[in-house]
Amino acid sequence: MATVSLISDEAASPEVLAVFDDIRAVRGTDFINNFWRALAHDPALLKATWERLKVVMGPGDLDPLVKEMIYIAVSTANGCSYCVHSHTAAAKAKGMSDAQHGELAAVIGMAMQTNGLVTALQVEVDKVFKA
Amino acid sequence: MATVSLISDEAASPEVLAVFDDIRAVRGTDFINNFWRALAHDPALLKATWERLKVVMGPGDLDPLVKEMIYIAVSTANGCSYCVHSHTAAAKAKGMSDAQHGELAAVIGMAMQTNGLVTALQVEVDKVFKA
Amino acid sequence: MATVSLISDEAASPEVLAVFDDIRAVRGTDFINNFWRALAHDPALLKATWERLKVVMGPGDLDPLVKEMIYIAVSTANGCSYCVHSHTAAAKAKGMSDAQHGELAAVIGMAMQTNGLVTALQVEVDKVFKA
Amino acid sequence: MATVSLISDEAASPEVLAVFDDIRAVRGTDFINNFWRALAHDPALLKATWERLKVVMGPGDLDPLVKEMIYIAVSTANGCSYCVHSHTAAAKAKGMSDAQHGELAAVIGMAMQTNGLVTALQVEVDKVFKA
Amino acid sequence: MATVSLISDEAASPEVLAVFDDIRAVRGTDFINNFWRALAHDPALLKATWERLKVVMGPGDLDPLVKEMIYIAVSTANGCSYCVHSHTAAAKAKGMSDAQHGELAAVIGMAMQTNGLVTALQVEVDKVFKA
Amino acid sequence: MATVSLISDEAASPEVLAVFDDIRAVRGTDFINNFWRALAHDPALLKATWERLKVVMGPGDLDPLVKEMIYIAVSTANGCSYCVHSHTAAAKAKGMSDAQHGELAAVIGMAMQTNGLVTALQVEVDKVFKA
Repeated sequence: MATVSLISDEAASPEVLAVFDDIRAVRGTDFINNFWRALAHDPALLKATWERLKVVMGPGDLDPLVKEMIYIAVSTANGCSYCVHSHTAAAKAKGMSDAQHGELAAVIGMAMQTNGLVTALQVEVDKVFKA
Repeated sequence: MATVSLISDEAASPEVLAVFDDIRAVRGTDFINNFWRALAHDPALLKATWERLKVVMGPGDLDPLVKEMIYIAVSTANGCSYCVHSHTAAAKAKGMSDAQHGELAAVIGMAMQTNGLVTALQVEVDKVFKA
Repeated sequence: MATVSLISDEAASPEVLAVFDDIRAVRGTDFINNFWRALAHDPALLKATWERLKVVMGPGDLDPLVKEMIYIAVSTANGCSYCVHSHTAAAKAKGMSDAQHGELAAVIGMAMQTNGLVTALQVEVDKVFKA
Repeated sequence: MATVSLISDEAASPEVLAVFDDIRAVRGTDFINNFWRALAHDPALLKATWERLKVVMGPGDLDPLVKEMIYIAVSTANGCSYCVHSHTAAAKAKGMSDAQHGELAAVIGMAMQTNGLVTALQVEVDKVFKA
Repeated sequence: MATVSLISDEAASPEVLAVFDDIRAVRGTDFINNFWRALAHDPALLKATWERLKVVMGPGDLDPLVKEMIYIAVSTANGCSYCVHSHTAAAKAKGMSDAQHGELAAVIGMAMQTNGLVTALQVEVDKVFKA
Repeated sequence: MATVSLISDEAASPEVLAVFDDIRAVRGTDFINNFWRALAHDPALLKATWERLKVVMGPGDLDPLVKEMIYIAVSTANGCSYCVHSHTAAAKAKGMSDAQHGELAAVIGMAMQTNGLVTALQVEVDKVFKA
C-alpha cells in the first residue's frame, strides 16, 4: 500500500484533472496508472513530472522503444519494481519482442556483473577513455 | 589504484594471452584496457567474462549501440565510474551522436527521478501491468 | 515472509524483553514492530541497534522530524520498502504535513535525477567544493 | 574527466547564457559549477533541470537547509561524490553547523545500517504501517 | 508477478530441458525454482547463467557456504528480495546456523553503516591502502 | 578531499585520543586510517562506531576473514571505493590469498548479474523459499 492515498478523478482538483486529461490524450487511453494518482497530492509536482516525461520519452534522436529499454535498465539497477513493471508494459506496447526482452535482460545482467568486478577490484580508468 | 596489479602481456600466461589475442582480433585494435588486465589474475574468470561479453554485446535482436547505451544506464545507476567511461567510449566508437548522448542522459535522469518518487511514495503496481 | 521468525513476547528471553520494555517506554506505546521482533534472534544485535537508534534519532542539533525525513530519503535511495513505510509513519506521528511529504518526495526525486545526470556525464568535482 | 567537455561562457549559445545568467542572479554569485557547464551541451535539458531545481530547492514547507540535507542523504546512498561535495558546500553556505553535519552523517549511517538489516532478514511491513 | 511467464517442463524445449535436468542432477532435487523457469525464455541466457553459476558457486578456494553468504550480502545491498530469499535457503541447506545468520546480518548492517559514513564525509583513501 | 578535515593526534580531545589508543591496541599498529580521523569531529559517533565495529568484526561464529569478505561484497555493491580498499587490505592482512580474492570477485559478479536478471524479469519468490 502506498504511503499516500490515490486521487480518483472525482477527488481531483481542476489542475490535476487537466494533467490527467493530457495524459489520456497523449497516450490515447482512458487509463491513469497509480503513479500519477499518487503524485496528484502535489499538483505542481504532478504537472512538472508529466510535462518533462512527455518531452524526454517522446520521439527524438533516440527511438521511443530504446528509451523505454534504457528506463527499464535504470529501474532494474535501482530495484524499483513498479517502474520495471510499468515500463516493461510500455516497451511491449511499443513493440518490444520477446527476443529483444531477453537480450535487454542479458545486457543488464552483463553490466551488473562487470560493474561488480570493476568495483571489487577498483580498476582505474584507462587514460585513453579520458581523452 | 586497483586492489590487484595489472597483468602485462609479458607477464601473461598462455591462456591469458589467448584471451587477449581474441579481444584484439574481435575489436580490431591492439589495445587491452585495464579491466581485462585486472581480471587476468584469474584466467578462468577472464575467459568466462570475455566469452560471455562477446556474445551478449554482439549483434542480435538489439543493435550493438543500443546495448552500449543500456550498459551505460545500468553502470550509471550503480555508480561505476570506470564502466561509464569505458562504455561511453564504446558507444561513441559505435556512432553515438552528441544529441543521442544528451537524450540518453536525460532518460537516465528521468528514470532515476521517478524511481525515487515511486519508492518514496511506495506506489503499488497497477493490476493491468501484471496481466 | 521474513527469513527468520518473529519473536513474540512469550518467546522472548529476559534480555530481549528488557529491550522491548525500553522501546515501549521510550515510544509510549505497547506496540513492537516486526523489525525488532526479527532482530531479537540475536539479542546483542537487538540491543546494540536499539541503544544506538535511540540516541541518533533523538533530539539534538537536528529536529527529530528532520531526522525522520533524512531516514526516508536514504531508505528510498536504497529501495527499502519496510524502512520507507515505518519511517513515513514515524514522520507523520512527529507532525509531517502532507505538503511537507510532497516536498520531501520532490527533493528526493530531484536529487535522484541529478545524481543520474552527474554520474552519466562523469562531471568532476569543482575545485571550489574541495576548498 | 567528464565524458563531455564543459561549455565556457564564450562557447555558450544565447539560450545557455540565459540560464547561466539566471543561475548567477538567483545564487548571487558569478560562479557556474561544472554540472551546469556539462549539461549545457543539451540546452533543453539544462533549462528544464535548472528551472525545476530552482523551485524544488527554494523556500516552501520545508526549510532550504533541510532540503540540502535530504539531498546529501540521497546522494550518499547513491554514491554520487560530486553531488555530496556540491550539496555539502551548499548546506554549509545555508548555515549547517559542524554539529548538524555530524548528526546528518550519523542518521545516514543509522538508516543505511537498518536498511541492510531489514533487507537481509526480509522483514515484512507491519499492518499498522499500511493503515 | 513476473514480466515473463514461467516455462513449465511440458512447455520446455529440449535444450531448456537439458539445463533443467542438469540443475536437478547437480542439486539432487527435482525442484526447479522460478528464476530458471523465467530465464528459460532465452535458452542461451539460461544455459550460460547456469553453466557459470555451477562453477562459481561450487567448491574452490572458498567454502560453498561462505560463497552463499557473500551472495546474500550483495543481494541485500542491491535490494533483491528474491535473491536474498533463495540464497538464504541455500545457505541454510549448506549448514548456516542461526548464530551465523545473525552475524552475517550484523556484518552487512555494519558495512552499510560505514559505507554511508565514508561517502557522506567523502573520506579519501589512505595512501597505505593503495600501496 | 573529504568534506571535513582529518583530526590529528595533536588536535584530538582526550575522549577522541582514548578511542585512537584503543584502535591502536586492538590492531597492534600505530596507524590510524582516515575514516576514524574524519569521524573524530563527532566523538560520540566515533566511539559508538568503533565500539560496535570491534565486536561485530571480531571472532565469533563466523571467521574474521569471512567477515572481511562479506564487508567487501557489501561495499562493492554500494560502490564505496574507500571501503573496498580498506577492507581488501584488512582481508589480505588476515590471510586472503590471491585465489580467494579472485573467487570473491567472481561470486560478487555472479550475484550482481543474477540480481539484475531477477529484478529485470520481476521473478516472484517461490513458495518453498518462504516456508
